[in-house]
Amino acid sequence: MPVGTQATVKGLTQEALEELGTGIILANTYHLYLRPGHELVRELGGLHKFMSWPRAILTDSGGYQVFSLSELRKMTDEGVRFRSHLDGSEHLLTPEKAAEIQIALGSDITMVLDECIETPAPREKAEAALNRTTAWAKRARNHFLQQSSGNSNLPQWQFGIVQGATFADLRRQSARQLLELDFPGYAVGGLAVGEPHEVTCEMAGEVTALLPKDRPRYLMGVGRPEQLADYVALGIDMMDCVLPTRAARHACLYTSEGRVLIKNARYARDQRPIDPRCACSVCRRYSRAYLRHLFAAGELTAAILASHHNVHFYLDIMRQIREAIEFGNLANFSSDMHARYTAGPA
Amino acid sequence: MPVGTQATVKGLTQEALEELGTGIILANTYHLYLRPGHELVRELGGLHKFMSWPRAILTDSGGYQVFSLSELRKMTDEGVRFRSHLDGSEHLLTPEKAAEIQIALGSDITMVLDECIETPAPREKAEAALNRTTAWAKRARNHFLQQSSGNSNLPQWQFGIVQGATFADLRRQSARQLLELDFPGYAVGGLAVGEPHEVTCEMAGEVTALLPKDRPRYLMGVGRPEQLADYVALGIDMMDCVLPTRAARHACLYTSEGRVLIKNARYARDQRPIDPRCACSVCRRYSRAYLRHLFAAGELTAAILASHHNVHFYLDIMRQIREAIEFGNLANFSSDMHARYTAGPA
Repeated sequence: MPVGTQATVKGLTQEALEELGTGIILANTYHLYLRPGHELVRELGGLHKFMSWPRAILTDSGGYQVFSLSELRKMTDEGVRFRSHLDGSEHLLTPEKAAEIQIALGSDITMVLDECIETPAPREKAEAALNRTTAWAKRARNHFLQQSSGNSNLPQWQFGIVQGATFADLRRQSARQLLELDFPGYAVGGLAVGEPHEVTCEMAGEVTALLPKDRPRYLMGVGRPEQLADYVALGIDMMDCVLPTRAARHACLYTSEGRVLIKNARYARDQRPIDPRCACSVCRRYSRAYLRHLFAAGELTAAILASHHNVHFYLDIMRQIREAIEFGNLANFSSDMHARYTAGPA
Repeated sequence: MPVGTQATVKGLTQEALEELGTGIILANTYHLYLRPGHELVRELGGLHKFMSWPRAILTDSGGYQVFSLSELRKMTDEGVRFRSHLDGSEHLLTPEKAAEIQIALGSDITMVLDECIETPAPREKAEAALNRTTAWAKRARNHFLQQSSGNSNLPQWQFGIVQGATFADLRRQSARQLLELDFPGYAVGGLAVGEPHEVTCEMAGEVTALLPKDRPRYLMGVGRPEQLADYVALGIDMMDCVLPTRAARHACLYTSEGRVLIKNARYARDQRPIDPRCACSVCRRYSRAYLRHLFAAGELTAAILASHHNVHFYLDIMRQIREAIEFGNLANFSSDMHARYTAGPA
């Protein structure tokens, strides 16, 4: 899922996203609640209509953003009180409120509010956050079912979020507790925040082993190109990451041969496309030399073209993963990607 | 002509420019000479290939940019010595050199180097600059004809530039002198740099009255939406302006009803397109409320969508002007535009 935090994927218009074959994007409850406001979005017909995006939208609950962006946050069992990073105004986000905001936004998939903690975390802290996350999930689930029962013309799904930091038994405990709430899909949160890739995989594996195979399993906030197949191999169905668009804005392009840091002088006369094996509209038309020039000149079009290519590359990895699964080839695909991406940037 | 100073129109990909029906863009000799360098562009097959733009390109000579951007410039009859605004390196731009750079770039229309002066200027200074511009035009014309005679596979045109500040007789004198050099097209330079619109029109009129009707007459660096028809009425065939893209990046949108300053709170809930009478892809898809949100959130897509609309609006004015001419309606069209644009921003 390309990340469209503020109801737009940075550097890509909705037309471009459609051209890229994007089926679903992620938007953010915290950001849209603060600006332009969920009631305004509701009034204008919901997020799909507001941003003119007819395909699927998943909204994150805002738990992670309150944790990472806001000031003076105070967690209680009731919810989290925080100051906006925009204007310092004070807000209280509760599990019920987070659900309500997402109902107002009208996203297709909504997420429960969870408590995010820094990593590595002591076990007691992880356990407390997990228990609070479960308690909040219950409240969010009840509230959501209550609200959405009278709202049949806008079908929305609600996913639970498994926490438990890097403790396998806590992860399993969290998953079991959420399973009782019978969510139509489950996310694994609080990972890929600094721990080694092997630990991310281990934790994700502990959880997916318990989650029902016929419901979407979503690993939040991952990952690097060479890691995606590993997560899929563990049973993960959905992922989101700012990396393709953020790296693009920083002149880091992903290719079938590894990363291309396009500002490097070696590309000044390089007439090849970003990735000779890529079929995206940027690779069909523009050269590395031109892209390098646009970045050197600080031009807007640099970010536009680079974001387009990188998002295409990510979506193409997912297509290749699906193909590899069909041909029983996923392990090979994964080790191949790791080999290309450990060689270091070109 | 949309302005693509550094071989890109800010915020618009070449695909977008094609969709908009752009037939010709303007790129800049001064900027491309300094970065990425004209020899590099030549080596990569010329500007069309470098930026993947098969349609027409006009390159300005760099005279105005040396005047407005560079440091420590020193004018002599030989040329202009200046320091790069990028790295402080010292360069000498002569009429021959400016022609050579543009031959290397391979633009379709090249401009002679002229001497630009601040406005208002004392008559003696304007006369001296005019005389130097004419002397430089002779050298540039000779050099260009010499060079391009052996270069038949890359047909390029070279335009002269009429100077003379705001003195009607100097303008006529400049035009007459350039006519002797038999350029395939003529530009009017050094206008729209602070003088009243009436003065711009008066000077342009003095010049177009003398220039051959069967050769393009190009008024450089204009103008505001409501002014374009006035210039055309005076016999101007070509114009370039940064305004549509620059205003777009500053949240100023042009519409058939006048300017829309989209950050204004009144648009927060406005579901109408930027311009209900506009057929561009942005107006067909997005609302004012969404555009306002993108600008408030400081998103890249704000500049992309706004630039797209504004360039469409400008190109559409030119289409409407051609239509008005056919129907003998140009004066009405012009006064109508002035009425809409003097009402002030909405």
